Amino acid sequence: MEKIRIGICGYGNLGRGIESEISKSSDMELVAIFTRRDPSSLKIASNTPIDHIDNVQNWKDKIDVMIMCGGSSTDLPVQVPAMAKLFNTVDSFDTHAKIPEYFENVDKSAKEGNNISLISCGWDPGMFSIMRLYSSSILPSGKTYTFWGKGISQGHSDAIRRIEGVKDARQYTIPVEEAMARVRNGENPELTTGEKHIRECFVVAEEGADLARIENEIKTMPNYFDEYNTTVHFISQEELNRDYSKMPHGGFVIHSGSTGENNKHIMEFRLQLDSNPEFTSSVLIAFSRAIYRMKKQGQTGAKTVFDVPPILLSPKSQEELRKEML
Amino acid sequence: MEKIRIGICGYGNLGRGIESEISKSSDMELVAIFTRRDPSSLKIASNTPIDHIDNVQNWKDKIDVMIMCGGSSTDLPVQVPAMAKLFNTVDSFDTHAKIPEYFENVDKSAKEGNNISLISCGWDPGMFSIMRLYSSSILPSGKTYTFWGKGISQGHSDAIRRIEGVKDARQYTIPVEEAMARVRNGENPELTTGEKHIRECFVVAEEGADLARIENEIKTMPNYFDEYNTTVHFISQEELNRDYSKMPHGGFVIHSGSTGENNKHIMEFRLQLDSNPEFTSSVLIAFSRAIYRMKKQGQTGAKTVFDVPPILLSPKSQEELRKEML
Repeated sequence: MEKIRIGICGYGNLGRGIESEISKSSDMELVAIFTRRDPSSLKIASNTPIDHIDNVQNWKDKIDVMIMCGGSSTDLPVQVPAMAKLFNTVDSFDTHAKIPEYFENVDKSAKEGNNISLISCGWDPGMFSIMRLYSSSILPSGKTYTFWGKGISQGHSDAIRRIEGVKDARQYTIPVEEAMARVRNGENPELTTGEKHIRECFVVAEEGADLARIENEIKTMPNYFDEYNTTVHFISQEELNRDYSKMPHGGFVIHSGSTGENNKHIMEFRLQLDSNPEFTSSVLIAFSRAIYRMKKQGQTGAKTVFDVPPILLSPKSQEELRKEML
Repeated sequence: MEKIRIGICGYGNLGRGIESEISKSSDMELVAIFTRRDPSSLKIASNTPIDHIDNVQNWKDKIDVMIMCGGSSTDLPVQVPAMAKLFNTVDSFDTHAKIPEYFENVDKSAKEGNNISLISCGWDPGMFSIMRLYSSSILPSGKTYTFWGKGISQGHSDAIRRIEGVKDARQYTIPVEEAMARVRNGENPELTTGEKHIRECFVVAEEGADLARIENEIKTMPNYFDEYNTTVHFISQEELNRDYSKMPHGGFVIHSGSTGENNKHIMEFRLQLDSNPEFTSSVLIAFSRAIYRMKKQGQTGAKTVFDVPPILLSPKSQEELRKEML
């Protein structure tokens, strides 16, 4: 069997996750890791060849799908349109508001290069998006709710760390059980993001810092915290490292709809993840397989998870899947 | 906008559900209902034309998708291969063990008629199958569990009604909370169907019948009840009609997998349905839209829910879906 040859572009949490999880797919092989840093300085977990991103052109016929592991704010909007001219790509671009513009840019480049590019893959956007689409298509008389957590929000943790006197911080987003109960009960309530989530902050302060001021600055921070029920705990760096260093996340997509004479139906999808980057990597790997197959069928241009028939995600044969899973 | 013209073949619970729910899709219209009975004897909820199934050939260019609403045991295996020669079809064939053979038969007929036929659509097989496929593809180091209920099993209710001295009965399949908790906890236990479900029976006995014998016959019935924790309640016909006449159902697909250094992940999909036939109808309607579009793309032959890109299920434009749901 010919294996699907995978490249990783960018070696952060996500790149490490791909490297760790790809060995579980016997139909795929990791061919190279690309970095903007000096390749000789990069310490990686496997013995995969490492090359500088400037040399990526030399790999043109040696890689079937390039998994783009950069950040959404500045890396992916530049890297993916460039890379899509050379390779089929898969990425996890997650700036929801900019997806339409991003899609257009990547689509143009991918078509130019006769390649296929899956954008915004992962769990949200990604699996949660798929659930929103299935449920709203099946029960059009209904309402879809997304709750995030319990999990670490990197953006909110960073925002706390920028406050004067803060040494380190982790912010957990936690869904409000009461709000979820109302949704599951078919009440179809109007809920703001702040009514759906609470924010719990674990903060390491510098010695002698004014804790009351820090707590107040967090709780009143516009957009990030002011509209939420926020709690702040001051802990030591040792406690933070010991108890809050993992990257759990998850959440719920709950669709509440009705049919006939007020018959109610709840469709609910839940993720509970010990490691956000490793799960996201696992989603990217499965969709890389599908993208490779869609290219073989002659498809090019930008795609999303919505375009992917689920049968293309599995290494098993279509006969096996119909027999074992249908 | 040209509407997708839908036909219903068979007017039982499912046919009535399609008739009730299709009005929620502004891009579809119900064109005719076909029956094996005398059309003039059929009382239906709408003013849709009714015709005898023997005249279906006259409708060949007037219907885009025929939704097949017969039973899986004897109707669909005969009706669908015949109908697929004339129309694009969608059905909810649910005899899991016979799906591969059924797929081959329908595939042959549909290709002969240059039509497309979606088989085994609904929630299980259907949405639950899709969840099993997504989750096992994303987390190959893992195990998928399906729990059914709480809901009425028609087959088990019928089995009780065949016992001497039983006038009427309803059987509820209920998932075992403790077993679900072990799965969600990532224990990956080995569980038999009997360890995953309990069976609760509400029975109306004939006057003077031997209740102890009936209860014993139920609890020891091979395949149906003997391997389950079963409870039997004797109630009056009035109570049965008043409290147990709805057709609720639902269940859970829970996948427990791991990545990296023993990081555990739970993917869980839950359905909680007031009306099993109305929800199943809603799934069939959304997939009829997709099948119509796949035919327009030039696809023919038998398909399953695994083959359908989710983006084809919604009446909204692809741009809207990427903007609003991704």
